[in-house]
Amino acid sequence: MNLLVVGTVAFDDVETPFGLREGILGGSATHFSYAASFFTDVGIVGAVGEDFPDDFLQVLDGRGIDRSGLQKIEGKKTFHWSGKYVGDMNEAETLDTQLNVLDGYRPSVPEGFRETPFVFLANGEPDLQLATIDQVRPRFLVCDTMNLWINTALERLKEVLGRVNGIILNDGEAKLLTGERNLICAAEAVAAMGPRTVIVKRGEFGSFLLCDEGRFAIPAYPLRKVIDPTGAGDSFAGGVMGYLAEIGSTSFADLKKAMAYGTVTASFNVEDFSLDNFKRISRDDIDRRFGEFVAFTSF
Amino acid sequence: MNLLVVGTVAFDDVETPFGLREGILGGSATHFSYAASFFTDVGIVGAVGEDFPDDFLQVLDGRGIDRSGLQKIEGKKTFHWSGKYVGDMNEAETLDTQLNVLDGYRPSVPEGFRETPFVFLANGEPDLQLATIDQVRPRFLVCDTMNLWINTALERLKEVLGRVNGIILNDGEAKLLTGERNLICAAEAVAAMGPRTVIVKRGEFGSFLLCDEGRFAIPAYPLRKVIDPTGAGDSFAGGVMGYLAEIGSTSFADLKKAMAYGTVTASFNVEDFSLDNFKRISRDDIDRRFGEFVAFTSF
Repeated sequence: MNLLVVGTVAFDDVETPFGLREGILGGSATHFSYAASFFTDVGIVGAVGEDFPDDFLQVLDGRGIDRSGLQKIEGKKTFHWSGKYVGDMNEAETLDTQLNVLDGYRPSVPEGFRETPFVFLANGEPDLQLATIDQVRPRFLVCDTMNLWINTALERLKEVLGRVNGIILNDGEAKLLTGERNLICAAEAVAAMGPRTVIVKRGEFGSFLLCDEGRFAIPAYPLRKVIDPTGAGDSFAGGVMGYLAEIGSTSFADLKKAMAYGTVTASFNVEDFSLDNFKRISRDDIDRRFGEFVAFTSF
Repeated sequence: MNLLVVGTVAFDDVETPFGLREGILGGSATHFSYAASFFTDVGIVGAVGEDFPDDFLQVLDGRGIDRSGLQKIEGKKTFHWSGKYVGDMNEAETLDTQLNVLDGYRPSVPEGFRETPFVFLANGEPDLQLATIDQVRPRFLVCDTMNLWINTALERLKEVLGRVNGIILNDGEAKLLTGERNLICAAEAVAAMGPRTVIVKRGEFGSFLLCDEGRFAIPAYPLRKVIDPTGAGDSFAGGVMGYLAEIGSTSFADLKKAMAYGTVTASFNVEDFSLDNFKRISRDDIDRRFGEFVAFTSF
């Protein structure tokens, strides 16, 4: 297997200006792995409760996602997130979070996954990210994080940052983490904490890369209609890591191309709720939109 | 002459986190013409008061800017704007505006300027923009506008839009003008009002082009430190129009390149107050940064 993600598989309740959906398939590992599956073999480490339905598992199976690291824990319920998007839909307002099965969960990486070359630690408690790091020997290890951990577990998060090769985080998180207001300064300060590759997500404004070899920026793929932004960041990361794992490279040139693939992949994800639009597309659609995106950004 | 701008020449009081400057040289036509002068011959139509000092005029003369259309009106004072930038510095807070010489001013385009092929109508009252349009016969006519005119003179603004080839406006203005929340939808709705070329400025997030031939987006040039954003939009427009006038083209491919030149030119402008950084650079510096910008955005 080329790529491993450790993260959540969840039930989501999502409200956007385009409607309300309850109990739909969500979670960081779900969006990440589905996005990455267009590019490479991918496996999940995580946990769901006994209420997790077979047809949701079959969604993952349909893409060949290896879920032998996804534990189903009897007597517990699946992680459940409720949120809504208003206005420009750039940020979700979290209405409710029920940890359920994740309360007290420690990730356990199956023996067969431990040598996976590309590993992504989706947003999660730094202690759990560290517990995962202890179990893997990847070539390229990338993490995500969020404001909650920056505010409540900064020292442990810094330990994580000292042990990863890269981080994919959003603009506000990079600024909060570093106290810098300027994008470049914030990215440089993040890199100084450990990760040599820093990718900053800027929502509808695209993304920014800082690494030893240089800097790079691309706009977002322009969409007339965003139905549900949930999973945009994770499917972007899935496209980035999926492409890198597919070609087995982490060069500057390939990181740039990977970000363009991540951008395009995420653009499909937000065109419907949950994975509904992902289920309709193929790698060909991604490659076609990638071609449009090249034209859209070249001068 | 290749390029004409009709706009303001002003005294500015500007406060940013990097300092306070009073009575410095500002105005839309000033920033626009200085930026454009790196690319082509440019002339100004506007008015200043009797208090306007010779050394400010010499700043324009030093770049060969034709100010035969810049009237100095006795008994009046120069237009004076005061503003400050706080936080992320994305928007100025206007503290005071003294119209002075512009109160009752009607632009008068000198006979020798009337056939100028490229004309830019900087932000101004739609009635005055229309009065200018009546006096020129350009090949490529582009305007700017602002929230004030969208809110107070919409019908006259629509007349302007029906008579221009292009518009360069910011994100918030495009959305206010059209009632659309989505960037593409807003740009399309602006184009439906007349201008076939719509360039939407997005501040630190770059800019977006919609024209008959397609769509295009570029990020901003990344700067560690923005000292004073005043004139960013006008110097961007000056770079765009200056480059187009230099090469005598309005093709899609050249519009894209022009936006990249506008981006790079504006990036120099905001690195110091007023025109202070512009005064230090040459076309070579612009071309060098253009090369870096190509690398920064290519994948």
